[in-house]
Amino acid sequence: MPAILPLPRHTVIEAVSRALAEDQGGRGDITSLACIPANAEAKFYVNAREAGVVCGLQPALEAIWQCDPEALVSPQVTDGDAIRPGDVLISVTGRARGLLAAERILLNFMGRMSGIATFTARYVEAVKGTGARIAHTRKTTPGFRAFELQAVQAGGGALHRFGLDDAILIKDNHVALCGGVAAAIKAARTSAGHMTRIAVEVDRLDQLDAAISGGAESVLLDNFSLDDLRAAVASASGKVTLEASGGVNLGTVRTIAETGVDVISVGALTHSAPNFDIGLDEA
Amino acid sequence: MPAILPLPRHTVIEAVSRALAEDQGGRGDITSLACIPANAEAKFYVNAREAGVVCGLQPALEAIWQCDPEALVSPQVTDGDAIRPGDVLISVTGRARGLLAAERILLNFMGRMSGIATFTARYVEAVKGTGARIAHTRKTTPGFRAFELQAVQAGGGALHRFGLDDAILIKDNHVALCGGVAAAIKAARTSAGHMTRIAVEVDRLDQLDAAISGGAESVLLDNFSLDDLRAAVASASGKVTLEASGGVNLGTVRTIAETGVDVISVGALTHSAPNFDIGLDEA
Amino acid sequence: MPAILPLPRHTVIEAVSRALAEDQGGRGDITSLACIPANAEAKFYVNAREAGVVCGLQPALEAIWQCDPEALVSPQVTDGDAIRPGDVLISVTGRARGLLAAERILLNFMGRMSGIATFTARYVEAVKGTGARIAHTRKTTPGFRAFELQAVQAGGGALHRFGLDDAILIKDNHVALCGGVAAAIKAARTSAGHMTRIAVEVDRLDQLDAAISGGAESVLLDNFSLDDLRAAVASASGKVTLEASGGVNLGTVRTIAETGVDVISVGALTHSAPNFDIGLDEA
Amino acid sequence: MPAILPLPRHTVIEAVSRALAEDQGGRGDITSLACIPANAEAKFYVNAREAGVVCGLQPALEAIWQCDPEALVSPQVTDGDAIRPGDVLISVTGRARGLLAAERILLNFMGRMSGIATFTARYVEAVKGTGARIAHTRKTTPGFRAFELQAVQAGGGALHRFGLDDAILIKDNHVALCGGVAAAIKAARTSAGHMTRIAVEVDRLDQLDAAISGGAESVLLDNFSLDDLRAAVASASGKVTLEASGGVNLGTVRTIAETGVDVISVGALTHSAPNFDIGLDEA
Amino acid sequence: MPAILPLPRHTVIEAVSRALAEDQGGRGDITSLACIPANAEAKFYVNAREAGVVCGLQPALEAIWQCDPEALVSPQVTDGDAIRPGDVLISVTGRARGLLAAERILLNFMGRMSGIATFTARYVEAVKGTGARIAHTRKTTPGFRAFELQAVQAGGGALHRFGLDDAILIKDNHVALCGGVAAAIKAARTSAGHMTRIAVEVDRLDQLDAAISGGAESVLLDNFSLDDLRAAVASASGKVTLEASGGVNLGTVRTIAETGVDVISVGALTHSAPNFDIGLDEA
Amino acid sequence: MPAILPLPRHTVIEAVSRALAEDQGGRGDITSLACIPANAEAKFYVNAREAGVVCGLQPALEAIWQCDPEALVSPQVTDGDAIRPGDVLISVTGRARGLLAAERILLNFMGRMSGIATFTARYVEAVKGTGARIAHTRKTTPGFRAFELQAVQAGGGALHRFGLDDAILIKDNHVALCGGVAAAIKAARTSAGHMTRIAVEVDRLDQLDAAISGGAESVLLDNFSLDDLRAAVASASGKVTLEASGGVNLGTVRTIAETGVDVISVGALTHSAPNFDIGLDEA
Repeated sequence: MPAILPLPRHTVIEAVSRALAEDQGGRGDITSLACIPANAEAKFYVNAREAGVVCGLQPALEAIWQCDPEALVSPQVTDGDAIRPGDVLISVTGRARGLLAAERILLNFMGRMSGIATFTARYVEAVKGTGARIAHTRKTTPGFRAFELQAVQAGGGALHRFGLDDAILIKDNHVALCGGVAAAIKAARTSAGHMTRIAVEVDRLDQLDAAISGGAESVLLDNFSLDDLRAAVASASGKVTLEASGGVNLGTVRTIAETGVDVISVGALTHSAPNFDIGLDEA
Repeated sequence: MPAILPLPRHTVIEAVSRALAEDQGGRGDITSLACIPANAEAKFYVNAREAGVVCGLQPALEAIWQCDPEALVSPQVTDGDAIRPGDVLISVTGRARGLLAAERILLNFMGRMSGIATFTARYVEAVKGTGARIAHTRKTTPGFRAFELQAVQAGGGALHRFGLDDAILIKDNHVALCGGVAAAIKAARTSAGHMTRIAVEVDRLDQLDAAISGGAESVLLDNFSLDDLRAAVASASGKVTLEASGGVNLGTVRTIAETGVDVISVGALTHSAPNFDIGLDEA
Repeated sequence: MPAILPLPRHTVIEAVSRALAEDQGGRGDITSLACIPANAEAKFYVNAREAGVVCGLQPALEAIWQCDPEALVSPQVTDGDAIRPGDVLISVTGRARGLLAAERILLNFMGRMSGIATFTARYVEAVKGTGARIAHTRKTTPGFRAFELQAVQAGGGALHRFGLDDAILIKDNHVALCGGVAAAIKAARTSAGHMTRIAVEVDRLDQLDAAISGGAESVLLDNFSLDDLRAAVASASGKVTLEASGGVNLGTVRTIAETGVDVISVGALTHSAPNFDIGLDEA
Repeated sequence: MPAILPLPRHTVIEAVSRALAEDQGGRGDITSLACIPANAEAKFYVNAREAGVVCGLQPALEAIWQCDPEALVSPQVTDGDAIRPGDVLISVTGRARGLLAAERILLNFMGRMSGIATFTARYVEAVKGTGARIAHTRKTTPGFRAFELQAVQAGGGALHRFGLDDAILIKDNHVALCGGVAAAIKAARTSAGHMTRIAVEVDRLDQLDAAISGGAESVLLDNFSLDDLRAAVASASGKVTLEASGGVNLGTVRTIAETGVDVISVGALTHSAPNFDIGLDEA
Repeated sequence: MPAILPLPRHTVIEAVSRALAEDQGGRGDITSLACIPANAEAKFYVNAREAGVVCGLQPALEAIWQCDPEALVSPQVTDGDAIRPGDVLISVTGRARGLLAAERILLNFMGRMSGIATFTARYVEAVKGTGARIAHTRKTTPGFRAFELQAVQAGGGALHRFGLDDAILIKDNHVALCGGVAAAIKAARTSAGHMTRIAVEVDRLDQLDAAISGGAESVLLDNFSLDDLRAAVASASGKVTLEASGGVNLGTVRTIAETGVDVISVGALTHSAPNFDIGLDEA
Repeated sequence: MPAILPLPRHTVIEAVSRALAEDQGGRGDITSLACIPANAEAKFYVNAREAGVVCGLQPALEAIWQCDPEALVSPQVTDGDAIRPGDVLISVTGRARGLLAAERILLNFMGRMSGIATFTARYVEAVKGTGARIAHTRKTTPGFRAFELQAVQAGGGALHRFGLDDAILIKDNHVALCGGVAAAIKAARTSAGHMTRIAVEVDRLDQLDAAISGGAESVLLDNFSLDDLRAAVASASGKVTLEASGGVNLGTVRTIAETGVDVISVGALTHSAPNFDIGLDEA
């Protein structure tokens, strides 16, 4: 069972109310309000329409709660569960108007988050048995990162830095403008404090030694050939964490993992995962 | 050249500052701040790395502006332009710290929006010569709808309703809880006012007549077979706008368009478009 | 009974908390906090002091809830009800401090919204028996539109477009800058999508034909004489929706309605309705 | 020339951006964006269409700025100026799209604020030569108080307390729950600090002495007959500020003022002022 | 028992959720989420670790509520209570994850607010038996004023003006730019309305008469010598409220109070109070 | 010169506008607005009134900018500079009204931030020549952490984790609820990803080995005696980062540093630093 961090409560509340406001505009759901009596009750099931890994329960339940605080809700699964077509994910009884107003938002959260979880799980499965972990990048939908990273975890993926302020990652430009790898790592260490990890990105094998001797704790090997990855592992494994990135897809990921790198980071997990098909059906 | 609505100014400002805050946390870009002098200048190019349709100039320029109000920015393309690998999309000169802080956010906006524009353009191309328009749905990333719908327009797609409050769309549940199609349309007309359009979703051909005679101005034919679509066109074309949805992909869209429907709405445009590859390179 | 759309929940919550914050500043209700013990209970009635149509129950109940979540509240009327002087609208028992802090905000919402509802009802009554509907305009108090439009509905008035983005309304300036009525309607149709209605405003009778032949679905006849309104109805009734505006007041509205127009839009409903007198009395 | 406090900058920025967002929704001004080229320029005049007192320049200029930061704007009047039909209030040259998007919001601010200023000026004129000042109440549109109080000032009216936290006003309920007038004033004085004024509301002449001897600095005489107002002035003038309220309208206000009270507070200034007619005309 | 105004509800909710969001970032409490099962329960005591005056119950309880809405909370003290080392202030049983996430925020509110209350109480104690009240200034932590002023009250201190808009305080610059004390007071009286108090700051004894004859209700004697304070009291006591400021500390405050001034305002209450030591211990 | 991270732009803008709004309420600076003509110009100096380390330039300049966007501002120092009484920190020429409205907010930011910087510098000076760094804790004013941590850096202090989500810190409760130190570290490692550092807090010397062998990268020695600190250094130095906390003040800090620990974290830096005296004087 993957380790999945629950989302901070304020993050869920704000994102769900923003999404509902976006959808409801100034007048609300003018169709349901016109056609459905205020006190009409309904029972709905949220159903999987394909196989994969579910994610998005937190915002889904919040969306129901915001639209009908008195609805009776029974989640049937937990984030990270493997699901199959036809599985009931949530059953809910409440005011028809409220539930229909929540429907599309609930499905948008769960569809996107389960899509990422399912896509990530395929990468994780592909590297099974190697020591490599699959990690996300910062290539996320603007304003929606916390949800997308939770979904990566639900699929068995590992966390990378959340953003620019929780870890140091020194790249080309930093090295160039700081006067070399050693100078950049030293500047980072002076500035960062003892609770912040320092990583360095390298483009060529011959930069690896400088990064390690400079004091990098993790090295990101960007767009390395398989041979160079193997050489990096041979020379640096155990000294620093080795992360590979670039040119990773479901066809290449296992071969990359078999070079012995510790982490493989994959932008596609969050920027190109297809939607997972989920629907809401009346009982 | 497609008709593309510029995004409202407040929408762009808020989304960009939310995205930057999400990425920068409480301390900002701790790597650049440690390694790059405050007044170091740099020149960067935003480059296409594949062929497609560009979108996202508004938030990209706003991100640069928020990170370095004095940067000199030259956009080289306009939303909706066809671009090729290697094309320069934006060139910018400014403070290295500010531009590097903007980099990932800028690329995330443009990558996702150009991805949707490019994916939409393939559907639009596929139906070329038929009378059908390709439209979006409400299956969008929570909180990011305005950007995704602009991207659909950049790819030549057509607008549908933005959310629940700008048009009436009567579905199964409304019909059931309101006592029939005619009753639902009448209730909608009473409530909605003369500037709001009324559409009805039908699942079976035999429901079409009731929708039209009830006064629907547009009918959504959901998951119809090709034969039923043709029959619907034969009986209703010219009386109401006919929209098809369900089972639409790049392999089926042309055949559906050739039945003569007016609009084909496609959830995948916004929920499953792959990212478009864009990078930032130093001059 | 008029069709009244409930306000979106977030709209009510935000407007009420903004109003309470505006009234309470940094220290709250310094009089009640100084003079009334924390646990003192009180029972109050919200009473009508004149005859009219009530509106504003949603924000009133929210204001009570925000100031005393444990108060026992019994609304005695529903938005849109006809009320008479002395009628109890709400009875409430709770903490005296909380209820007194809510008092003015509650009354400000209900006084303004009932004022608009009552004023609208006079226009609606005035055109009774003609086919004309009375509609609002966008001439609303900045930031308060959703509440004012609900009040128009409570008085029996009809909805117009909520704002600039939910329907097309082509005016003089658009025609001039677009190269004529036909060009403007065509541009609108290209841009707008099939779920958005297109209206054209005309100032002279001789512009009506161009609007209709160009494809307008609704025509706004601005400041037409009664003769010209009749002529417009004679030539266009049944082809498009005809809306009259300009020079409308309680003395003229019936005559305008009798010309046969479908809709009469009245800015005064929201911008010049006098307050409705409501008070809070201790039991 | 009346004393008019400029509005705090953040108050203006927030209210204007909220109003624009309310009007523009998710897609903006879909008519102008469809029909008017992005770079089309226009020149407009904001014109008075009736006689009165102008107010609302601050939000009007902010609305233009937010919609077209490069527009050239020339205000021709100042808040509080007497204006006549046809007077140009603002002339502006800029992008047609931006100016048309600002138009309705600008007019809504100026129409409502000038309406209140003009209505207030009639009350102020009516009491001219007496010593009485005309003051506002807290009966304002929720969320819009700062603007309405500025408009009262523009019409020559005086400020009362802004909200519940900047002055003490002891009413019936406070007296009852605190154990008498003297006890309530004492509790208020203990709690309030030396920079906060303390007023007491009385309903009957025989309560006046207790208020004064208890230490009230101002007494609000609510719904007093003219005879009782005169008696109150005779006994208390010079000892405390005397404020009259209740039953005040343009027919009664002078007679009330002639009793010798210092302040007359009028809810109608803000809750029932009719709109002032202002329009935007193309040059 | 000091008079303590409860904080407005929205002020508490907003400050607590901002503080929690600041502490939790995008991923929440990654330690507890990793190490503690979701349903683990715990019982904690909030304990005083030194002697003083407690304050901060409102935000403390709100922090618990936001992190675990189902926790059972028993506050054992009230704001303003004298407490001793080891006293239990709050006992709480709930989800361990939620309570640990609330811990630091709760302690930060209570530590700072109790620190200010305790420090204020020392000043209040020092002037006991004189007629002087100890008041706060506007020298507060940006964005945190309401909490700091409540803490001053909890320590027995008196309120001053909350901010720039609830009382007039004329200083040097105003006098200079307005053309003299009399002109400044007159301008203030014209602008301010009858519910706003007017104070004048003077630096020298010879300015006192002008302030009083001009109509000041309160005079702030800034950085006066003890002799000059006594002279001011001799000439002005009973005519205006006399406030001393400048050079006030625990060593000087009693002597200043014994000059007979009414109020002594002390910036250090809010800007230099040391933290009060409070801890959270597991049962 | 210490390493000081500039604050993220949005953090500064939001905190300054919140502070100004808090101070200005609904009506703004009613004294200056009444007494000072709109176009009166003034020149002011921000002056140090004692010796120390300056911090707070970013919010100070933002406050000026927000109150008078056209003011001419010349900062004379940089965050982290040593300053002496009488030093000019900022000189500014602009509208008197705007500058006086900014004054108190500017001074509150700079006074508190320079107070923390100056207090931190005393700790840093005290440990000079030892290898120990002085670090902050999470004991900060709610909502104001980013500013207080920047001030710690300005005084030469080092960063710790910003909040709960950027590093793992395992404490008693985590160990107890997770089943031991080793289990807790393992759970943390599984959950946290390779870019997040893991620290463990221990209360007794005999817990140190388990923390190290479990894989902690940093160990927080809480309330250790000097002997135990020395023993910990003897056994663990070089293997993990050793941080001491508890009982640290200016009298003890050097002795603690001389035990050889790497980091000493001090809550008092942010929760008990006295204000630094800064004033604004007219030229």
